[in-house]
Amino acid sequence: MSKKITPRNKDYSQWYNDIVQHAELAESSGVRGCMVIKPYGFAIWEKMQQALDVMFKETGHSNAYFPLFIPKSYFNKEAAHVEGFAKECAVVTHYRLKNDNGNIIVDSNAKLEEELIVRPTSETIIWDTYRKWIQSYRDLPILLNQWANVVRWEMRTRLFLRTAEFLWQEGHTAHETKDEAIEESKLMINVYAKFAKEFMSMPVIIGTKTENERFAGAIETYCIEAMMQDGKALQAGTSHFLGQNFSKAFDVKFANKQGKLDYVWATSWGVSTRLMGALIMSHSDDKGLVLPPKLAPFQVVIIPIYKGKEELVLIDEKVNDLIQELKSKGISYKYDNRDTHKPGWKFAEYELKGVPIRLSIGKRDIDNDTIELARRDTLEKKIYKFDSISNEITRLLDEIQDNLYNINLKRMKDNTVECVDFDDFSSKISSGFFVKAYWDGTTETENKIKEKTKATIRCIPLEKSKVMGKCIITGKQSKDKVIFAKSY
Amino acid sequence: MSKKITPRNKDYSQWYNDIVQHAELAESSGVRGCMVIKPYGFAIWEKMQQALDVMFKETGHSNAYFPLFIPKSYFNKEAAHVEGFAKECAVVTHYRLKNDNGNIIVDSNAKLEEELIVRPTSETIIWDTYRKWIQSYRDLPILLNQWANVVRWEMRTRLFLRTAEFLWQEGHTAHETKDEAIEESKLMINVYAKFAKEFMSMPVIIGTKTENERFAGAIETYCIEAMMQDGKALQAGTSHFLGQNFSKAFDVKFANKQGKLDYVWATSWGVSTRLMGALIMSHSDDKGLVLPPKLAPFQVVIIPIYKGKEELVLIDEKVNDLIQELKSKGISYKYDNRDTHKPGWKFAEYELKGVPIRLSIGKRDIDNDTIELARRDTLEKKIYKFDSISNEITRLLDEIQDNLYNINLKRMKDNTVECVDFDDFSSKISSGFFVKAYWDGTTETENKIKEKTKATIRCIPLEKSKVMGKCIITGKQSKDKVIFAKSY
Repeated sequence: MSKKITPRNKDYSQWYNDIVQHAELAESSGVRGCMVIKPYGFAIWEKMQQALDVMFKETGHSNAYFPLFIPKSYFNKEAAHVEGFAKECAVVTHYRLKNDNGNIIVDSNAKLEEELIVRPTSETIIWDTYRKWIQSYRDLPILLNQWANVVRWEMRTRLFLRTAEFLWQEGHTAHETKDEAIEESKLMINVYAKFAKEFMSMPVIIGTKTENERFAGAIETYCIEAMMQDGKALQAGTSHFLGQNFSKAFDVKFANKQGKLDYVWATSWGVSTRLMGALIMSHSDDKGLVLPPKLAPFQVVIIPIYKGKEELVLIDEKVNDLIQELKSKGISYKYDNRDTHKPGWKFAEYELKGVPIRLSIGKRDIDNDTIELARRDTLEKKIYKFDSISNEITRLLDEIQDNLYNINLKRMKDNTVECVDFDDFSSKISSGFFVKAYWDGTTETENKIKEKTKATIRCIPLEKSKVMGKCIITGKQSKDKVIFAKSY
Repeated sequence: MSKKITPRNKDYSQWYNDIVQHAELAESSGVRGCMVIKPYGFAIWEKMQQALDVMFKETGHSNAYFPLFIPKSYFNKEAAHVEGFAKECAVVTHYRLKNDNGNIIVDSNAKLEEELIVRPTSETIIWDTYRKWIQSYRDLPILLNQWANVVRWEMRTRLFLRTAEFLWQEGHTAHETKDEAIEESKLMINVYAKFAKEFMSMPVIIGTKTENERFAGAIETYCIEAMMQDGKALQAGTSHFLGQNFSKAFDVKFANKQGKLDYVWATSWGVSTRLMGALIMSHSDDKGLVLPPKLAPFQVVIIPIYKGKEELVLIDEKVNDLIQELKSKGISYKYDNRDTHKPGWKFAEYELKGVPIRLSIGKRDIDNDTIELARRDTLEKKIYKFDSISNEITRLLDEIQDNLYNINLKRMKDNTVECVDFDDFSSKISSGFFVKAYWDGTTETENKIKEKTKATIRCIPLEKSKVMGKCIITGKQSKDKVIFAKSY
């Protein structure tokens, strides 16, 4: 069978690729580093978008849209930002092609006066726009988000985890005061953590980044970090307090309540199709994708097992009653009664695609008024009375959602340790643990640890340690107990 | 007041620009030809997207996502397509910038081997992908759509109507047979017509394009054409039967039911943020935007009229009951009780923004248990008993939606004439009519008419004329009675 999944313990990386491919989530395109998101993968992303969009609107944000292109000179304006972003990017230099004896070539007469950068992130173009929108404190706050594609010319790409073009949302807000902007950036990292928990069934650690790992142009970067099944960390979302860096770079001032001019305070925050990678690696097993019910394109698949048309007619009729009930409850389903594929093929297919609940029903079930239910998370099968199945499904969808979260939470707890000895630290890091350890606060130490162990500081947890301790490498007294791990 | 709208009869074009600006729908950006879609404008676009997306899914389509960039060579593969699209486009030639003594410059060492074109439309990259997905008739049909940004390097741009970057959806389907593909392209033009009627309150004429106006690479282009208030036509959506042009260009074959290899049949179809321009020009008046209730970001605005906090408290309380009722009915609303702006300012503001229903309530209303309602479409005001207002709103929202459609339908009928004489034809065209006339079917005649009158053939209506007639310019007998008009 061509859809064989490589087991995790044999080759974790190949396991991931196999799932992305065989569950038909995404594939590489003819354009280097750019992916095609296939319908099944995109349907999951749409569910994520919808849930996040509701949460953004509930917290007072609106959507808007800003240009794909950014004039090169805009990047020059914020010193740290340009170092971080204006390097590996797609540069538009011409605006016309021409036909040269049957060959299409770039028209050298159509060179742009100033090159345009395909946005790697939109702080610069947005703050250039906010300058026109903000005069007074009455114009604040501005609480906007955009759903967009962005491009970063990554050299080593992996589907969903790191691609040249990816889809994301980027929130960009403008505030009267420093405190309000900090509150906003904290609010949004908590929105992300809530989304990760409630929709993705994925526990995360909330913290701040070290200077080294901070967003280029930010004063503080809040992040959520999740643990994948191989023990590596995956940064799943970030929210930045940008201070007045961009308002100063783009000269965005406002008259405050006292009538004095001040620079506007800013935040930005984003999550991307990278979350698809996080979702896959949080729950899936050697049989394929496993989806939390809230993000499954369809939560229930129903497969008839029949010989001949007559039996199918009986089953169709019975299933139709159930479908009406599922519909009325808002439970999404797929009834796969195609005769082009055998039940065995269908069982494997929907297991591969991570459908939370599989129902199968045959002639004997009709006679006995029963139906078989299989859970994707535990792979348990059980026969139920037909009448009770709809309530059972409602209950189980919640249970599966919770169960997946609890499995992940347990894994994260079991694989997080504290170390005070560097040899122990190194060994734990290489075995795929999250390691809590004291760090002396210097970039030098951070780099040394990375060099020796490949671990980076994933975050400085928001819940601070109450006691001081010795830095894991220099032994200096420090108040920062931070989380080290290898990461995606 | 700075938000003055230029009257239509004084300067129609300025009227349009004033509405886009003052209703805060969109604005030009620092990037030539690219617009910023502001939150209020984007909220309308989101309503359009949601309604269309439901209609696409109801007709069996799924969403997916394909790369922003298309290798230059892909455009070479379909002869007609390259002529139409690979000309004015954004060309990415480099993938890195570097710091040159504090200046950011393009790194000449980072030149792409093959230039990438920012998609002007995605047929080429999608059919390059479909080749990998389609082997047998069992893989068909493929019914996909993507919501995306596209770029066409337009020289003269106008907000929403013609911009270098715009947002759209593009459906791309693959079929076993010619008939099925033709059915699909007709189905989707009818979906667009239904959307225009039911959501935009905008009547359209469905027809096909002449060879001259056809999509580059299509066998047949179906279109919907709407009449704006100045009598000009606006092409609001197109659906293309692409035959086997793209499957041949990208070598996409399938084994049919008889086991023989054949090329796949294709369609593509799209609508864009241009619909925002159509919406604005269909309904708005000299006081500002007028929105059909189904696309309004909020359908009802409530404005308290009060002196002092005490009165406001009373009004707040009363309004709160109404808000609960509106919520339960799914009617969107905004209660603007800000004390930073006067009622008169608010009245003008929401009139400008086209909110379908405005309610105002003051101390005297509280005493009398009344509330005032103003309709945006007719500008009528009336006082209602407070108890009856919620039902009245429900009824009126439907009535406004219908009324706007009927006004447009009447305008279209009143301003569509048939001509048999060329002088009459010219005079009607220059007065802003849609003119039905016979045409001899040649591009030569079409071009001659365009040269003399600036009118183009907007479409060949699907409802064919039953009798022959004489071509308006050459006098040749013809069966094609077509629609001429000046257009956007």
